[in-house]
Amino acid sequence: MSTSIISTALSLPTKTHLQSQQPQQFTTLKPSIPLSTFTPKPLSLSSRKFSPLSAMAIEKETPETEAPPTFLRDGSTSSDTVRGRFEKMIRETQDRVCEAIEAADGGAKFKEDVWSRPGGGGGISRVLQDGAVFEKAGVNVSVVYGVMPPDAYRAAKGGGGDHKPGPIPFFAAGVSSVLHPKNPFAPTLHFNYRYFETEAPEDAPGAPRQWWFGGGTDYTPAYIFEEDVKHFHQVQKDACDKFDPSFYPRFKKWCDDYFYIKHRDERRGLGGIFFDDLNDYDQEMLLSFATECASSVIPAYLPIIEKRKDTPFTEKHKEWQQLRRGRYVEFNLVYDRGTTFGLKTGGRIESILVSLPLTARWEYDQKPEEGSEEWKLLDACINPKEWL
Amino acid sequence: MSTSIISTALSLPTKTHLQSQQPQQFTTLKPSIPLSTFTPKPLSLSSRKFSPLSAMAIEKETPETEAPPTFLRDGSTSSDTVRGRFEKMIRETQDRVCEAIEAADGGAKFKEDVWSRPGGGGGISRVLQDGAVFEKAGVNVSVVYGVMPPDAYRAAKGGGGDHKPGPIPFFAAGVSSVLHPKNPFAPTLHFNYRYFETEAPEDAPGAPRQWWFGGGTDYTPAYIFEEDVKHFHQVQKDACDKFDPSFYPRFKKWCDDYFYIKHRDERRGLGGIFFDDLNDYDQEMLLSFATECASSVIPAYLPIIEKRKDTPFTEKHKEWQQLRRGRYVEFNLVYDRGTTFGLKTGGRIESILVSLPLTARWEYDQKPEEGSEEWKLLDACINPKEWL
Repeated sequence: MSTSIISTALSLPTKTHLQSQQPQQFTTLKPSIPLSTFTPKPLSLSSRKFSPLSAMAIEKETPETEAPPTFLRDGSTSSDTVRGRFEKMIRETQDRVCEAIEAADGGAKFKEDVWSRPGGGGGISRVLQDGAVFEKAGVNVSVVYGVMPPDAYRAAKGGGGDHKPGPIPFFAAGVSSVLHPKNPFAPTLHFNYRYFETEAPEDAPGAPRQWWFGGGTDYTPAYIFEEDVKHFHQVQKDACDKFDPSFYPRFKKWCDDYFYIKHRDERRGLGGIFFDDLNDYDQEMLLSFATECASSVIPAYLPIIEKRKDTPFTEKHKEWQQLRRGRYVEFNLVYDRGTTFGLKTGGRIESILVSLPLTARWEYDQKPEEGSEEWKLLDACINPKEWL
Repeated sequence: MSTSIISTALSLPTKTHLQSQQPQQFTTLKPSIPLSTFTPKPLSLSSRKFSPLSAMAIEKETPETEAPPTFLRDGSTSSDTVRGRFEKMIRETQDRVCEAIEAADGGAKFKEDVWSRPGGGGGISRVLQDGAVFEKAGVNVSVVYGVMPPDAYRAAKGGGGDHKPGPIPFFAAGVSSVLHPKNPFAPTLHFNYRYFETEAPEDAPGAPRQWWFGGGTDYTPAYIFEEDVKHFHQVQKDACDKFDPSFYPRFKKWCDDYFYIKHRDERRGLGGIFFDDLNDYDQEMLLSFATECASSVIPAYLPIIEKRKDTPFTEKHKEWQQLRRGRYVEFNLVYDRGTTFGLKTGGRIESILVSLPLTARWEYDQKPEEGSEEWKLLDACINPKEWL
């Protein structure tokens, strides 16, 4: 699952009319509750796996003038539930990251858009565009109540079992962000942390509730400063090592594998960490882990921005950055599951596509000279390295 | 099928190793003939329909120092066959359009890349980049010998029949071009004309040979000058009317339907003509029709370029053009069947992606002011108009 599937899935309006054959199965939910359908765990990296959703139609979200204390349905800000604590964490992350980005930018402010869905859930998109330091910075949170097709649920649970459930109501929440600086020596950052929970199936009230965590933070420079890349990866490793020594090597490789532009045989950037569908650890431990990862975004990234934001550059450096931005667009539009899912199902387009850079470039048959700084970046995207 | 499926399909190298179960069925072809697999007629507009091809592995094309007189396997330049005459037509079209573009640009020259495939076929990519008038202009021809899966063949033929054929060798040839000018008042043009032919199936030598034509020419400005749009559409209609009065209305609508950016609910541009899988007319008539359409590119487009290439513009006009270029990228990477097919099957990436503009832009939640010139363009992309 994409690091940004939440950003898009969670920006899907929930006011959805299932065009499928089974709306009557939801009658014990309030009849007025609009449902969104969501596949939480596709079985492969292919972005083409969402065909069961293609029959969906999703109504528009409702704009709100200000963010409510919580998007949870019951209106509580309870700290008793993992849902409540996760929503609190992602909203604090959004606040902290936006403050840090505004401070680094030195003047520009985030524009905020808030929306809700009549049946519960909603989101906050914040975008800073054409600032002094940042070309485009987007930080979104969203909360979705939806219903997943039974096949997706069985896939998510793993194994078949002898009971065939009906559609499964689910809850999902996440924070997602892409930060594109102007200076070609300052890297792009993407991070996303998300939490899913299923309700017991309608027709199997005794079935266990499922949950899982996903997310990651990854680093996409146009030029390599080895000290920067090491610093970035070290912060990720430190966060991982507090929980399990296997996490960093496993999630580092997962990240290299996920952000792969197949038609170029190169990665989008220099990786970081990525994980998905994690539920084979203690739930509290994984909540703490996701919280730690989200808290690591600022110390991992901002020192690099401070160091590189004013580095002098030439037109050639800028063009190379723009070509790499083109690769970012290619990955996000062709492969990223969150983006392709969101575009297909009619999510809030502006929130989904906020990940795209302000500007990008495609030159015919551009090949950096072997040994050049541009070539070194490309080489590291083709052959992922161990930075630590 | 995409107007550029040929440009990409035809840029696929033929040196393909079918990883499937049936390579032995081709033993009566020269064993050394590498085969490419190609789905000539997907059943819907969805770009996600190419799953049978995902198991393909395609070897690299071979670069050539100069273009051979023909890419046909038998080496002849025979004017007796439709294949031979179609190849001649597309290569003449490439020459004429490149000459006209160079003349309009007034200095910049096309860079040519030629490649062949060991088993026959090949292509010529010509790209003019960062000229005085054109930001990026690509004109490609290619010729492919391949093999299509039997399912695709049955779909293409329509109806089942009681005989189940094996994989079908096919021939395809096409010209494809995207022309992006610099001036925001000068429109982007895309055209593509292609011809397919199947051989009789191995295991049904008496089965009839199938053939069909596809293509179109479409117009994508950032600003509307009604006289320009009318001129462009009139030339398309005149070409159509020489053959059948039903062609222009039918192919105009087909074009509006095809170049649709679903997630935006808007078209890429202001349309033109588009047709595909045409075989229900006389073959000679359709060859003449495709030839007429290809000949109409220069009179439809160059007068508009001459008129608009030096129009004074502001930063704001340029930004709007760049935003519309962003839409061009979205359509081509997310929906265009030729592009998505080519990326998935490992075609010549630089030839496939030459359709992308040199530069593009994405602003968060950009909405033109109602009644503005930008709004008028957007409105015409959302609500296709009858221009004649």
